[in-house]
Amino acid sequence: MTDQPVLVLVPDASGASGTEPRLAGPDGLHVRVTDLGITRGDGVFETIGVFAGRPVNVRPHLERLQRSATMLDMGELDLDLVGRAIETAIEEHADVEELMVRVIVTRGNEPGLPESGYPSGWVHAKTMPSYQADRREGIDVVTLDRGLPTTAPDTSPWLLAGAKSLSYAINMAALREAARRGASDVLFVASDGYVLEAPTATLLVRQGERLITTPPEAGVLPGTAQRLVFETLRVEGRECVEELLTPEQVATSDGAWLVASGRLATPIRRLDDRELAIDHELTDKLGEIIAGRSTPAAQ
Amino acid sequence: MTDQPVLVLVPDASGASGTEPRLAGPDGLHVRVTDLGITRGDGVFETIGVFAGRPVNVRPHLERLQRSATMLDMGELDLDLVGRAIETAIEEHADVEELMVRVIVTRGNEPGLPESGYPSGWVHAKTMPSYQADRREGIDVVTLDRGLPTTAPDTSPWLLAGAKSLSYAINMAALREAARRGASDVLFVASDGYVLEAPTATLLVRQGERLITTPPEAGVLPGTAQRLVFETLRVEGRECVEELLTPEQVATSDGAWLVASGRLATPIRRLDDRELAIDHELTDKLGEIIAGRSTPAAQ
Repeated sequence: MTDQPVLVLVPDASGASGTEPRLAGPDGLHVRVTDLGITRGDGVFETIGVFAGRPVNVRPHLERLQRSATMLDMGELDLDLVGRAIETAIEEHADVEELMVRVIVTRGNEPGLPESGYPSGWVHAKTMPSYQADRREGIDVVTLDRGLPTTAPDTSPWLLAGAKSLSYAINMAALREAARRGASDVLFVASDGYVLEAPTATLLVRQGERLITTPPEAGVLPGTAQRLVFETLRVEGRECVEELLTPEQVATSDGAWLVASGRLATPIRRLDDRELAIDHELTDKLGEIIAGRSTPAAQ
Repeated sequence: MTDQPVLVLVPDASGASGTEPRLAGPDGLHVRVTDLGITRGDGVFETIGVFAGRPVNVRPHLERLQRSATMLDMGELDLDLVGRAIETAIEEHADVEELMVRVIVTRGNEPGLPESGYPSGWVHAKTMPSYQADRREGIDVVTLDRGLPTTAPDTSPWLLAGAKSLSYAINMAALREAARRGASDVLFVASDGYVLEAPTATLLVRQGERLITTPPEAGVLPGTAQRLVFETLRVEGRECVEELLTPEQVATSDGAWLVASGRLATPIRRLDDRELAIDHELTDKLGEIIAGRSTPAAQ
């Protein structure tokens, strides 16, 4: 066990070659310059939260990894193999309160070169940065145009709306634009006027007792954290629905959050120039659910 | 000199550290798993054609690399340093008729890790695949929706329309969609109905004696090959303009090409279900210009 980042390589994520994941030094050089993941952003990823040693939502994350890989025509991944790499990374890392595990699978090396023709990747475990202040105090968020309509997944699947691909330059550029505007995060808005998601988190909105999120069909990533919240709260009888909302509806809601596996539930304190109330009690409850502390179904 | 690929590493592309490029084994592992180029597709690239040992358009490619880097807020690159790396890569590679040199600069390692906070990259020279058949016989192209309007660069610069970033998963997905439709390339169409560019090439259209390309302001990459063509042919008195065109106008034109530094000029033989005439004479002439064989201004 080490408190340094842990890296586990997965040379053939299709599992076809029978190769098992293997530990590697986290700071070394492990990616070829000709890997399509670096030359074209051509690959998929997931980030899994591990709280008090317990990874949350591993199977949903793996299934979403496959969903993204399918959207990118990468074929079938060996999810058990990737799962073993995740277990190894967690076992090898020192016990910390909050660990994050990033899984990356690329299309592999360019055609005609060694290790081409099949997906390969790695799993990287490292101590999570602290999100305590964001979770407690909330964050300032700006709305930014995402350019695409909510119908894009239906009409134009090659635009990969809702795939968790390595081509995240737009997401990163949007976060820099937010910083220029004095905010720390972004709520993307579709060209037909509906809110979508944040660059690395899912939107959750409370209207009275109802919890609302964006339908994945609109071209957002189906949220693993949001799904766990919905599954848990529905058992308690709360109405949890997927609906398209406008920025105005979010700004005038009874509370809104960006939820993600690592950050948990971050309340939106301000959306553009509008203040939102922070519901601390529900924030804490959402955080407990996403961190897998409130339900045996979390794994 | 070797006939194998040549790799030259550029550890600090800002030039601030005074580090010089250095040769590396082309098949080794040179990228960290935490480099933002691989974790987020967060970087920029260029591909330069080298014909009979002579690189074409190096300065325009370097300037466009900087343009993309600026769009991604990556700061000032040391273009002379990158230029020296390009020279080294070409010198070290065996003389071949057609060589391609790929330049990649990423945002560097993730914050808080070694080699973070400044861009780094490499130059990779390898023998070009043969495009002879495409250049001679032409290619079948399908139009695909790009989702964004031609006004996106003005209204939403964070969408990075027209940046040559490493986030090319959509471009690759579009090419796979073309293959599914029995074509070998794509002409992207903006949501307001105008044609844009191909995933890795610029559109050139002939209407009578006029040559037309898409205005870069519409959100396409300003073509280095197209620019060289326009500069050369304007000297000969030919009218060369930037205009928005519809797919119908392309399909009924007197000839259309996808032009790029490596492929040179590839005539469009078929656009969706419409046949286009192939102008072999002008194709050859465009190829000669892009390969730097017809003008002393090519460097």
